Amino acid sequence: MQGPEIQRMIHALSRLPGLGPRSGRRVALHLLKKRNQTLAPLIEALQTAYDTIQTCSVCFNLDTQSPCSLCCDAKRDPHSLCVVADVSDVWALERAHVFKGKYHILGGLLSAMDGIEPKHLTLSALVERVRSEGITEIVLALSATIDGQTTLHYVVEQLHGLPVSITTLAHGVPIGGELDYLDDGTLATAFIERKNVA
Amino acid sequence: MQGPEIQRMIHALSRLPGLGPRSGRRVALHLLKKRNQTLAPLIEALQTAYDTIQTCSVCFNLDTQSPCSLCCDAKRDPHSLCVVADVSDVWALERAHVFKGKYHILGGLLSAMDGIEPKHLTLSALVERVRSEGITEIVLALSATIDGQTTLHYVVEQLHGLPVSITTLAHGVPIGGELDYLDDGTLATAFIERKNVA
Repeated sequence: MQGPEIQRMIHALSRLPGLGPRSGRRVALHLLKKRNQTLAPLIEALQTAYDTIQTCSVCFNLDTQSPCSLCCDAKRDPHSLCVVADVSDVWALERAHVFKGKYHILGGLLSAMDGIEPKHLTLSALVERVRSEGITEIVLALSATIDGQTTLHYVVEQLHGLPVSITTLAHGVPIGGELDYLDDGTLATAFIERKNVA
Repeated sequence: MQGPEIQRMIHALSRLPGLGPRSGRRVALHLLKKRNQTLAPLIEALQTAYDTIQTCSVCFNLDTQSPCSLCCDAKRDPHSLCVVADVSDVWALERAHVFKGKYHILGGLLSAMDGIEPKHLTLSALVERVRSEGITEIVLALSATIDGQTTLHYVVEQLHGLPVSITTLAHGVPIGGELDYLDDGTLATAFIERKNVA
């Protein structure tokens, strides 16, 4: 019963990840009720992002410049490369303040289920970078899932013979995690990879 | 670690109802990854809504015209008025196809907790409409909550002495509802208001 303008707005909002028809309607109404305080700033922020954000030609990060500000940062170690599946992983690692090298974003994980093959990822660009940029260390920061581990093994295979050290994230009990609530796989891995404390 | 443009976009998205920082980031990435297929249509839909949608001066519905298309619909009974709290209630009732009169949107419910007083709602406009539009029937379609029932009693009081019949929605077991899962209040109301079947 909404007019086509409201319907189109609800439809566009409903298709966002995590939203559905009901939450789409809720968001639309929220925005329409206080147009100038909510809808106008949102449109402006989206428009600015649309106009300025691009994909970095080196590491495939999203930024207003290409090469991106991470690639151009002279304070970051150019010989150390962290390979991640997605831009959100870069954001997560940057929030953790643990890595001071450069990134390479694969653009996803290999997945037989979703039909993601090596050609869909930035794998050849990665091999090319390792060859040409004098990279000596690669950290594979991929999810501890089937797809993540499949991708990890594939990447290791592709880099075979190149003079780089390759590491992957440690598995174990998450900080703050109670043993009681841990899944068996994590607990087993943490037990097998137990470390000396004394 | 995102640039200010992406940060502003995430911030604007995170403030939408039902979203938070994490889902805001997720939605932002989703939009940025396929700019032309997702971000551009969303901006366009929001901009169109922003440019065209206004509040109806008669019933306070949202539409591209004022008076809105419901108020202008000659096929709807002009003597029957359904009073609701919000535009979303109009949408819900229109989806149910049960009411063929006009609407009046209060713009909320009286709430001591949230500091919503009679002056914040469109109550005087309602009384004025009942007086001037020759309305004979009013259906109060308000939530079965404390605030809804407070508002209901207040509206009834305001309309006291006017020549209108006032009804409210029936309470009882929702269609498809299993007794087992019903709250006690609903079950008690449904029992007390039981109806003859034979």
